[in-house]
Amino acid sequence: MRRIFLWLAGNAWLRERFPRLPLAQRAVGRFMPREHHEAAQRASTDFQRQGISVLLTRLGENLTHIQEADAVAAEYQRLIDGAAARSLDAQVSVKLTQLGFDLDQERTFQHVSELATRAATHGQSVWIDMESSPYTESTIAFYERLTAAHPNTGICLQAYLHRTAADIQRLLPLSPAIRLVKGAYAEPATIAWQAKREVDASYAGLVVSMLEAKKQGTDIRIGLGTHDVALIEQLDGQARAIGLPRTSFEVQMLYGIRVDQQVRLAREGYLVRDLVAYGEAWYPWYLRRLAERPANVLFVLRQMLPW
Amino acid sequence: MRRIFLWLAGNAWLRERFPRLPLAQRAVGRFMPREHHEAAQRASTDFQRQGISVLLTRLGENLTHIQEADAVAAEYQRLIDGAAARSLDAQVSVKLTQLGFDLDQERTFQHVSELATRAATHGQSVWIDMESSPYTESTIAFYERLTAAHPNTGICLQAYLHRTAADIQRLLPLSPAIRLVKGAYAEPATIAWQAKREVDASYAGLVVSMLEAKKQGTDIRIGLGTHDVALIEQLDGQARAIGLPRTSFEVQMLYGIRVDQQVRLAREGYLVRDLVAYGEAWYPWYLRRLAERPANVLFVLRQMLPW
Repeated sequence: MRRIFLWLAGNAWLRERFPRLPLAQRAVGRFMPREHHEAAQRASTDFQRQGISVLLTRLGENLTHIQEADAVAAEYQRLIDGAAARSLDAQVSVKLTQLGFDLDQERTFQHVSELATRAATHGQSVWIDMESSPYTESTIAFYERLTAAHPNTGICLQAYLHRTAADIQRLLPLSPAIRLVKGAYAEPATIAWQAKREVDASYAGLVVSMLEAKKQGTDIRIGLGTHDVALIEQLDGQARAIGLPRTSFEVQMLYGIRVDQQVRLAREGYLVRDLVAYGEAWYPWYLRRLAERPANVLFVLRQMLPW
Repeated sequence: MRRIFLWLAGNAWLRERFPRLPLAQRAVGRFMPREHHEAAQRASTDFQRQGISVLLTRLGENLTHIQEADAVAAEYQRLIDGAAARSLDAQVSVKLTQLGFDLDQERTFQHVSELATRAATHGQSVWIDMESSPYTESTIAFYERLTAAHPNTGICLQAYLHRTAADIQRLLPLSPAIRLVKGAYAEPATIAWQAKREVDASYAGLVVSMLEAKKQGTDIRIGLGTHDVALIEQLDGQARAIGLPRTSFEVQMLYGIRVDQQVRLAREGYLVRDLVAYGEAWYPWYLRRLAERPANVLFVLRQMLPW
């Protein structure tokens, strides 16, 4: 099932045509406030009323011309300012490839630096997404340079990669912000855990290692980018066992998935942040979300039905 | 499947009759060197040649008369001395109920203390097994008192219990030896994780918290009491990521299960200890092993066939 969705995500013909179908438009509504940042910000205001802050991301991946990156950066600048104008507790998350990483890494660095500077004027942060494994090392190296100049930045790491335990230790001296996700790309068994329970165990071990570092005085912000509520609650138990409060990490879930749980967790004293994705390039992103969590597929099928 | 075996383990009628059947005798041979401690020690010598040390345990559970405990303690004294006479790197593991814990806790404490003193004269250790949840708190309290007087003692904790993260923190100041198992009793969802992947995630988080404590200078001996080789290798990765050697924990597997893996792990530089159980009271113990790992059932069925 997972592999099917990942294949669909990469299929160019479908990527072009599927998003135009009316049933696709209906299906996607569940997972994002459609395509414009105004809609994303309206959704954010609703979350804020329930004590849930947001992380905004404009969908889009690899570019063909570097000028496209300039437009994406400008869009993020408007997004950061617009959220501040609405008094939202809104951070943003960017994909490096969407800002020209394949074409001109120096220009990408310039763009992300400017976004971080702009976010800092509003007391906000900028996160870097993690992409498939050919980008892991270069993205971490990018983040090392970025966060040295801009402490208000974070990075996403993936629990399914064998290397992640060492990557966390590597970043700890930099007072990092780390969002840990399970991982959504198809990666080979030589570098990534394959079985769900192996990925879960890796996830738990990595979070405990970050919590222990925090307890020892490391300045680290921890984001749990997962919808696995049982795992989140288990890790809350671990945090409290070592004497850390429930607020020593932030739960970061995607828009539209387990909203009831987000509200409940926020009520129970968890820090909760909703990741609101928007934009026209939603098709591959959306299918990776389905690949991650088969239960989502049922929701989607239900949304596609006309009654 | 798991519940069926646990029910069979508790069934008194079967407990009485099943062990006498010839096919049962054949089946059990796979998991233990029959019923006498001489056989257990011969098996231990074989392991030692392959770089694998042992942990000896005489099977037996709750008693009806306290005098039985005295006989069990005497048997353990002979076991400790016998292993030393053969120059085995052999520790022993006892169940408190087998030493009268239900009848006279002070006498149990006396017995275990004497075993620890005897083991210490040979440079060896004594482990306390963990039983079902009504015994958890009292067993931990017993260990706190025991290890204060006898540092060469260890305790088994169970990853499926919600409380274990806090129990580990509670024991850390005592320079403990902790063998972590997943847990083999039927415990309710109010106190124990039920899903295999939840137990695995808990296990990983708990081991990382012990490794981190060790890294911070806590004097702790860590035993991984599991046959889950993927999980062991993952945790080895975690240990090395935080700068600890592979030898910062010991892998403790049961006799007869995954011998090939024990030998391989020992060759790859892991500390490996084989838990050799023997004795006539093998029936409930044996069925709990089957409940833990359905793959064992196939082995057993194969052993039972007469050809």
